[in-house]
Amino acid sequence: MLTDRKVFLIGEAIEKIMSDVQSGNVERIPLIKASGRYLAEDIVANQDVPAFDRSLYDGYALMAQDTRTATKESPVVLEVIGHFGAGAVFQDEVKKYQAVRIMTGAEMPKSCNAIVMLEHVTELEIEDKHYIAIDKQIPVNEKVFKKGAEIIEGTLLVEKGAKITPGIVGLLATFGYNEVLVGVQPKVGVLATGSELLEVDEPLAPGKIRNSNSYMLMAQIEKVGAKPLYLGKLEDNLEKSYAAIQQALTQVDILITTGGVSVGDFDYLPEIYNRLGAKVLFNKIAMRPGSVTTVAKIGEQFLFGLSGNPSASYIGFELFVRPVLKTLLGNEQPYLMSHQAIITEDFRVPNAFTQLIRTKVKVEGTNLFVSSNGLNMSSSITSLVGADALVVLPPSDSGYVEGSAIDILLLSDEGQKNCYFTT
Amino acid sequence: MLTDRKVFLIGEAIEKIMSDVQSGNVERIPLIKASGRYLAEDIVANQDVPAFDRSLYDGYALMAQDTRTATKESPVVLEVIGHFGAGAVFQDEVKKYQAVRIMTGAEMPKSCNAIVMLEHVTELEIEDKHYIAIDKQIPVNEKVFKKGAEIIEGTLLVEKGAKITPGIVGLLATFGYNEVLVGVQPKVGVLATGSELLEVDEPLAPGKIRNSNSYMLMAQIEKVGAKPLYLGKLEDNLEKSYAAIQQALTQVDILITTGGVSVGDFDYLPEIYNRLGAKVLFNKIAMRPGSVTTVAKIGEQFLFGLSGNPSASYIGFELFVRPVLKTLLGNEQPYLMSHQAIITEDFRVPNAFTQLIRTKVKVEGTNLFVSSNGLNMSSSITSLVGADALVVLPPSDSGYVEGSAIDILLLSDEGQKNCYFTT
Repeated sequence: MLTDRKVFLIGEAIEKIMSDVQSGNVERIPLIKASGRYLAEDIVANQDVPAFDRSLYDGYALMAQDTRTATKESPVVLEVIGHFGAGAVFQDEVKKYQAVRIMTGAEMPKSCNAIVMLEHVTELEIEDKHYIAIDKQIPVNEKVFKKGAEIIEGTLLVEKGAKITPGIVGLLATFGYNEVLVGVQPKVGVLATGSELLEVDEPLAPGKIRNSNSYMLMAQIEKVGAKPLYLGKLEDNLEKSYAAIQQALTQVDILITTGGVSVGDFDYLPEIYNRLGAKVLFNKIAMRPGSVTTVAKIGEQFLFGLSGNPSASYIGFELFVRPVLKTLLGNEQPYLMSHQAIITEDFRVPNAFTQLIRTKVKVEGTNLFVSSNGLNMSSSITSLVGADALVVLPPSDSGYVEGSAIDILLLSDEGQKNCYFTT
Repeated sequence: MLTDRKVFLIGEAIEKIMSDVQSGNVERIPLIKASGRYLAEDIVANQDVPAFDRSLYDGYALMAQDTRTATKESPVVLEVIGHFGAGAVFQDEVKKYQAVRIMTGAEMPKSCNAIVMLEHVTELEIEDKHYIAIDKQIPVNEKVFKKGAEIIEGTLLVEKGAKITPGIVGLLATFGYNEVLVGVQPKVGVLATGSELLEVDEPLAPGKIRNSNSYMLMAQIEKVGAKPLYLGKLEDNLEKSYAAIQQALTQVDILITTGGVSVGDFDYLPEIYNRLGAKVLFNKIAMRPGSVTTVAKIGEQFLFGLSGNPSASYIGFELFVRPVLKTLLGNEQPYLMSHQAIITEDFRVPNAFTQLIRTKVKVEGTNLFVSSNGLNMSSSITSLVGADALVVLPPSDSGYVEGSAIDILLLSDEGQKNCYFTT
């Protein structure tokens, strides 16, 4: 069972996975369900915004030139010939020394070119007619939001691949996108291996632990924006496991297994990949935790064989599965966002492999700091609870000292175009 | 219609809203649906983790003292008396100079206290019996994950109010939480006012704009974790609007309206609050955009009267509605996270009110920078598209210059306990 495995650098492994992954199918869905999905079309302005000159305030629409001579001592008096609100259109002609009472958002009457706010006029009533007195000159375009001042028709507003945020939802509504083209959510199956695993609702028994990785992975899949499918657990039996995986592959776009990829006597996945005729891209990576992470493909279908250890499984998902899912969804920033941060403690453990430490980010002043978060063991589950970044420690004989600026990967939904790890 | 309004500081307004808001109802839901919800119970370890001494690697369990004398020149040879994997329990007695082949995660056989990895032994077969030769001393507890080494029973793991992340899902599964107690999602209705509003699928018409705020707000409500309900739009007619709002209040926990709260002739909400017997907490805030934001209460039920302008509505939601919803959900960090960042441009517009500028955060080196994002007008929708922070500019005669460190509020899901704005 002890076969030699070629060790891949993290960047090489990701490169191998991502080399021919392309965005997946698209579908048109109602805008009301689109929040959080990924745009599969560029959003181009199909009209000017505003689509017409409109009033920015409640006030009076007038011709600026009529107020040319207005002063405190000698105000200009205009006749108010009408009154309308947003949504209506004032049809009558407005002549010299006339004004129209207008509300915020309403379209400017033809021939008017400025607004005076309600607060800045004196209202007069003379022989049942309404007038306003204005005691200062009003400039042309005052308080008018001009047609196209915000957006000109034809402007590219949001590029394909963007995550649909509340702001983008508002923009889509503005331009009349009642439906929107988005990436189809890939269906990702999760199968755990190991006869030590109990279901979550089973009582603990000697030698057994509960299947926590599957639930964690399903939450990770959902967070990325794909659709998780729980497929249960495999027994430590080669024939049954093989049949279960064959069956699983017909149900999902991508299959994640946890455990069974190491060199243990019951680690059947290498043999199952073999029987399936799957092409193993790699089965050993120069990283801790998760060095036994294995990725295989049958045609275009991925089989991710993550470690059975919780932290290794979590990190394996974020580094290797996430970019595939994000790309399939149509997102062009599929990789974890990388930054630098100052470490607030020593990381002294020498290691020949790159270490990924679960950490918590803090901002003090305008600077980013990180500190480690619980036990740094691949079997640790508590270290994941408050973690929002991975510190990347390259191989080192001496480790790293407090106060150094170190690269980190944010465990947020924000992504970047290029992978932090290079080949 | 021009009534005097008392101007509240942002902090005063938030204080008035939040003074008697408490966490809402709770419900028990399946773990598989719990990701993203808020814990309504402390999670305390109901067992040690590990629950038993377990092997960290594939190897041989043995008694460390048997290897005391092992050297390269004179290896110790142990008889292999059995073989088992994770999930099984080795029942036989292991005696001196005996070992058991064991896989990662399996419970240590009684009397064994160390693991030697597969890679570090030489396997021998003598007269149909299996032996291993070990050429160095193995310390006690080597490669053993001791009972309770990660978590001791009774430890408080996650506090009530935490958002359930994938890591917490894994933790809950580990401890057998097949169901989990979470805050009930409040139902939030959205009603737009203004006869200028078209539905998203209607073609543009003179003087009209599409109802973008409602869709944006529904996406914001969903992002916060509550349940949005679209209630359509009110006409510019007092009686009909009053009836529609009365009806809406029976359907939802919280009602958000957009528009209709200013001093315009068709701004009916002040009169409707009056007829409903609602208590208006405030109707004018020293902020831009959104100075006319109004909040009223009928008993415990909130009516948020946000501005009809997109940016003002967006920001009004984040500052005033978000903390109420997060608190009802049971989250004890309901306020936008505040940091400092360096501004990469001048903000020179003097203002007597606090300005909130939609900005984009960038990290360079370990420092946070922000730059403004599109038109800084309350009516702007494009400024919201890529915004991930609000720069807070206190009232100033001269504005702020590039390179200054300025307070920002992150538009992320992360929150903080105390409100940035104080009274």
